[in-house]
This record gives sequence, structure tokens and C-alpha cells, in this order.
Amino acid sequence: MTDSKPLILLTNDDGIHAEGLRYLRMAAENIGRVSVVAPEAEQSAVGHSITLYDPIKVREFSKNGAFYGYGIGGTPADSVKLALYSLLPKPPALVMSGINDGANLGINVLYSGTVSAATEAAILGLPAMSVSIDRKKDPPFAWALPHIEALGAWVIRHGLPRGVALNVNIPAIPPEKVRGYRLTRQGLTKFRERFERREDPRGSHYYWLTGEATADDTAEDSDVAAVRQGYVSVTPLFYDLTAHSHMEVLSCSLSNL
Amino acid sequence: MTDSKPLILLTNDDGIHAEGLRYLRMAAENIGRVSVVAPEAEQSAVGHSITLYDPIKVREFSKNGAFYGYGIGGTPADSVKLALYSLLPKPPALVMSGINDGANLGINVLYSGTVSAATEAAILGLPAMSVSIDRKKDPPFAWALPHIEALGAWVIRHGLPRGVALNVNIPAIPPEKVRGYRLTRQGLTKFRERFERREDPRGSHYYWLTGEATADDTAEDSDVAAVRQGYVSVTPLFYDLTAHSHMEVLSCSLSNL
Repeated sequence: MTDSKPLILLTNDDGIHAEGLRYLRMAAENIGRVSVVAPEAEQSAVGHSITLYDPIKVREFSKNGAFYGYGIGGTPADSVKLALYSLLPKPPALVMSGINDGANLGINVLYSGTVSAATEAAILGLPAMSVSIDRKKDPPFAWALPHIEALGAWVIRHGLPRGVALNVNIPAIPPEKVRGYRLTRQGLTKFRERFERREDPRGSHYYWLTGEATADDTAEDSDVAAVRQGYVSVTPLFYDLTAHSHMEVLSCSLSNL
Repeated sequence: MTDSKPLILLTNDDGIHAEGLRYLRMAAENIGRVSVVAPEAEQSAVGHSITLYDPIKVREFSKNGAFYGYGIGGTPADSVKLALYSLLPKPPALVMSGINDGANLGINVLYSGTVSAATEAAILGLPAMSVSIDRKKDPPFAWALPHIEALGAWVIRHGLPRGVALNVNIPAIPPEKVRGYRLTRQGLTKFRERFERREDPRGSHYYWLTGEATADDTAEDSDVAAVRQGYVSVTPLFYDLTAHSHMEVLSCSLSNL
């Protein structure tokens, strides 16, 4: 009976037509029954946006004559909300977001639509993971599939602590070269970046963000280091930005205000 | 010499023309020299978005014949980046974002453009605070001013731990009724929300997010509880989503994969 297979919700931030989503679907179909709810248009670097003041349109998409999924006029986080509240027959056993072309490491995690879909799922109480491969140009998505299947099946079998999502980053090397899975923390060093100032034909100024968008936290337990060293980086994320380690000193200081 | 006054960068997510920003400017002018760099258009619930693939236009705005600030074609986080890298003569001593009409409490922190501007400033190594007042309709911004001045001056005088931003939420009551400042943690319970499904004149479906957008974490040390009890809630935020308290158990579990 196919209905006993766990339901897996797939989404992404590159849009329902993205190649990375097609590969994610291949992996997910080997471990469960798949539903796709994804933004219709590309939504990169949208962060954890949600659509509050506009309606969200939903369209059904087919590929090769078969239903492929719902494309929505919203963000990755919207996709997860809408799937759970309105489009799916029951809550999914797992939410997967990706495959992103290019790693989501370090501070990038805060800007990433791919990751925010997984975080939103965690907020809603669903086990979730975001998946990225560490190459932007011609990403070798096929190399990611065995890792996605293994991790996805593991999450479905064991569950995750409530509210926790896994941010998975896969090095762009063949599966047999990968050195294993490493549990990591989000790297914290910032990017080297700057703006280029240009003038348009009418003399107005505009700016392009440029510079190296490379996270450079080299501490052994960081997500950045793991991927560089050939490991699949698995970072557990929780939707709490509180600076817990600074509470005590600030509490003392604030009491003097 | 006015140049010895600390430079304060102001931004928000409601746009450069917002009433809340005008009030924030009044408070900030009492403690420093002010520069405004804010989105030209409203950017609510944009989360921590940055503009990677488009140029950002910059326009100068005046009010009552005097220069008021830079309006940019980007997000709150873009505003802070662009201010620091390109528009300001030197790094500001403090970045303030707000005043938001409506509290940014609990999980709302992840969706809030107001808060993301402060977090972005913290990532860039700048002392920062986001400020919201707990009323959406006819927000009594003037009541927030003494608190903003006191907290802003306190941050300029004492600094903040590197990478930490303060998320400040002010109850919508007269200053003399406020019971004090309370250091809090981000509330964690989710909203009660759902989607309303509608049909457009051509028979297509669209969805509106609805339901109560009220964070309901009632634990005494949460931001939600503080504001409800008449305190100014001050939550220190750090840009690390790692689920530190779950690392150990997951590490053990993952090693069996």
C-alpha cells in the first residue's frame, strides 16, 4: 500500500522549475510519497520573509503529463505554511528544501530562503532539513542524492527534537570521496563584501553588492570547515536568536540604567 | 563642536516617509548626530533579505527644505550595509531601527525587517537596537521617546558585546506608567494562524494569511510577558541559529548513521 509511505513535502527558493528541486524529488521519491509546494518565481536571499499583506496565488504544474506540484506566488516560508494549513491532506513526516546551487554556510544561513523554509517547518513543529551543494556553477546535484536519501530516511526514522531543523551542506565531490557526516555549528565570521558605485545614463547613482560572499570561519566545528574538508555538514538550527551567553552580563548592566 | 557627538544611523522597514522613523529621529537627535538610510518603499515582513542580484538605487530626500536622509531601493538590511560601506563618512556609534508600529515579539523576530536591520548591524560589528511599540493602530510613538533616548545613550556609553543587538519592545502606555526595563529572551511559541481560501472572478484560487498574529509565550522571562506586564522588553539577539542545546544528543545519534 503506497499510502503507508511517509509524506514528504518539498520546497525551495529557486522556484518550482528549478533543476535542484527536480533532483531533490528523485531522492525523496526513494524514501516516501512526495508533494511539491514551491515558489513560482526565484526567491533567492529573501531571508525568512512571509507574505502578510497580499494574497497568495496557487497554480498547479505538470511535467511530462503528470502532476508535479503547486507553484505559489510567495516565499519559501509561505510555501511551507500554505502546504501545512491548506494544500496537504495531512502533516508531512518530513519537509525538505533544496537542492540549493551553492552552499548555505555561516551567516548566509540568515539570508537564505532555502534554509528559512526548513526553519519555518520547524516552527510549525515539522521535522525538516534544507539541502545545499557547494557549487554555484553547474552544480553536480546527482552527487548529493545518496546523502539526501540517507539523511532523510534517518530523520523520518528517528525524528528530530521539536523545533529543530537540519541545515545540510554537501561538498561538490563524488559520494565515494565524501569523508562522512559531521555535526557542526553555524559559522560566525562575516563576508568580505563591498558596494560598487555606478552612474546610470541620467546621472543617478546606483550600487551593486560585490566582493567575496565566502564565509570564512575556519574553526574545526564550523559548517564552513566541514564542507572544506570534504564532510557533509549537518547543522541543527533552532529558531531562537536570543544571545543566551550574554544575558548575565547585560542583565547586571541594564539594572544600573 | 557638533562633530564630537556620536554618529547614529537610523533605518526602518516601513520606509523613509514613515511616521515612526520621524519620531525615532527626534529621540536620536537628543543623543547624537543623525544619518537616515532607509528603504524608499515599505518592507514589512521581509525577514533578513538582502539584494544580491539587482542594483540598489539611492535617492536623497528633504523635509521642510532640509536634507532628511537617503531612500534606497532595497531592504532594511541593505540599508545598513550600504550606509556602512558607502554612504556614511565613518562607522556609526549606534544603529537604530524603527519605530515599528506593532510589537516584534517572539517568533515575529525572525520575520521582522525592523529587527533584521539591527541584526545586520550586529553582524557588521556595530552596536544596534531595533525599537517597536506595542500598538499597530494609531501607535503613540511619543510615549516611546524617553525610553529610546535612555537606552540609546546607555548603549553608546557602555557599548554592547560584539555581535549583539538589542530588540526593544515598548508597551503602548504613558512613560510614567512603565514599570521599568526587563532583560528578556525571545518568546518561542507560535502564532495561531490559518489561510482563507478565496476564488477570483476567473475561478482561480488565492489565499490570505489570517488568524491571530499574537505570540503567546507567557513564561515570565519572555519578551511577550514583559510587554504585557508593562515593562520595556530588552532582548539581546545574536546571529547564531545553531541549536546548541541539542548538539550532544544529535551528535550521538548521527554517528550511528
